[in-house]
Amino acid sequence: MTDRLDRQIAFLSEADKLKSVLRASRLHDNSRFENSAEHSWHIMLFALVLADQAGPGVRIDRVLRMLLLHDTVEIDAGDNPIHGTVDQAAVEAAEQAAADRLFGLLPADQEAAFRALWEEFEAGESADAVFAKSIDRVQTPLANLANGGGSWTEYDVSFEQLEARVGRPVRRGAPALWDWLTPRLRAFFDT
Amino acid sequence: MTDRLDRQIAFLSEADKLKSVLRASRLHDNSRFENSAEHSWHIMLFALVLADQAGPGVRIDRVLRMLLLHDTVEIDAGDNPIHGTVDQAAVEAAEQAAADRLFGLLPADQEAAFRALWEEFEAGESADAVFAKSIDRVQTPLANLANGGGSWTEYDVSFEQLEARVGRPVRRGAPALWDWLTPRLRAFFDT
Repeated sequence: MTDRLDRQIAFLSEADKLKSVLRASRLHDNSRFENSAEHSWHIMLFALVLADQAGPGVRIDRVLRMLLLHDTVEIDAGDNPIHGTVDQAAVEAAEQAAADRLFGLLPADQEAAFRALWEEFEAGESADAVFAKSIDRVQTPLANLANGGGSWTEYDVSFEQLEARVGRPVRRGAPALWDWLTPRLRAFFDT
Repeated sequence: MTDRLDRQIAFLSEADKLKSVLRASRLHDNSRFENSAEHSWHIMLFALVLADQAGPGVRIDRVLRMLLLHDTVEIDAGDNPIHGTVDQAAVEAAEQAAADRLFGLLPADQEAAFRALWEEFEAGESADAVFAKSIDRVQTPLANLANGGGSWTEYDVSFEQLEARVGRPVRRGAPALWDWLTPRLRAFFDT
């Protein structure tokens, strides 16, 4: 049991580093960049509050676990802004190596379970992953609307690019959320 | 539905402010104070990883929801360091007013459900709340050990005070965690 606890606490201590991984998005009050740990908390709150937007078969408690874990690989691999230009194959290789190392800190049963949940999120095919990904995408537009542009301004994003990169996954998992956002986004991008 | 979504998104936007509520604890690397949003994410990860420490009848998914919500009242009421001296009645009144306002942003059904879950956590009597409170308490000692003292140094805390303020709730919900910590804490406080 002690070896098990040692491993679990080694993982939990390492996880503290996610609080120092900065995203391209900023807080609603524009005071600073958001980090991936507080982002993860916020989107779990989104998933719980907006659970009635989930499609048939979605299990919110599984979605919460998925979102709790979804960014831990960024401790090694960093955050890759959706509007940035990246070598997708290199990012995926870095994230797989990060998952090997980080989940590998855990006891084997938890390593397997967490890895499987993260892979399911990444694949974005199951009902739970589709909803989790829509929720993950919907938070930053709200922040950018609140703080006057945020990562859209920084990356010179057009409404059409936003539709393709963010609208598509949000509509796939939670269409009413994109309908709610669209007039607000149009008002921002039209001015 | 639109009014419902309006209310839900008003709550989620207001929740962003939890990222600016600073705690007395510091990150493991000692770089800055921790905020209550990233703390909430971290202890949810603790609860998931350390679920095998939970007593009979504990439902981890309920514990996760409880921990997701447990600090939102700090947006209005602020964080009250466990080693600080506070007027407990004043803190409770401020937190109740905060819960009125913040959960009151939500649709009535969610307001009632979230408020009930938060009150259950605060009461600390149900099996889920006892475990949630032990998990909430166990993260900061690990951070303080990592960063060389943190809030213990700042508040001039003795091992006996720590035993009473932190050890008691941790032992109540997850005794093996306190057993694991004790020799490490003694080594710190004895030097």
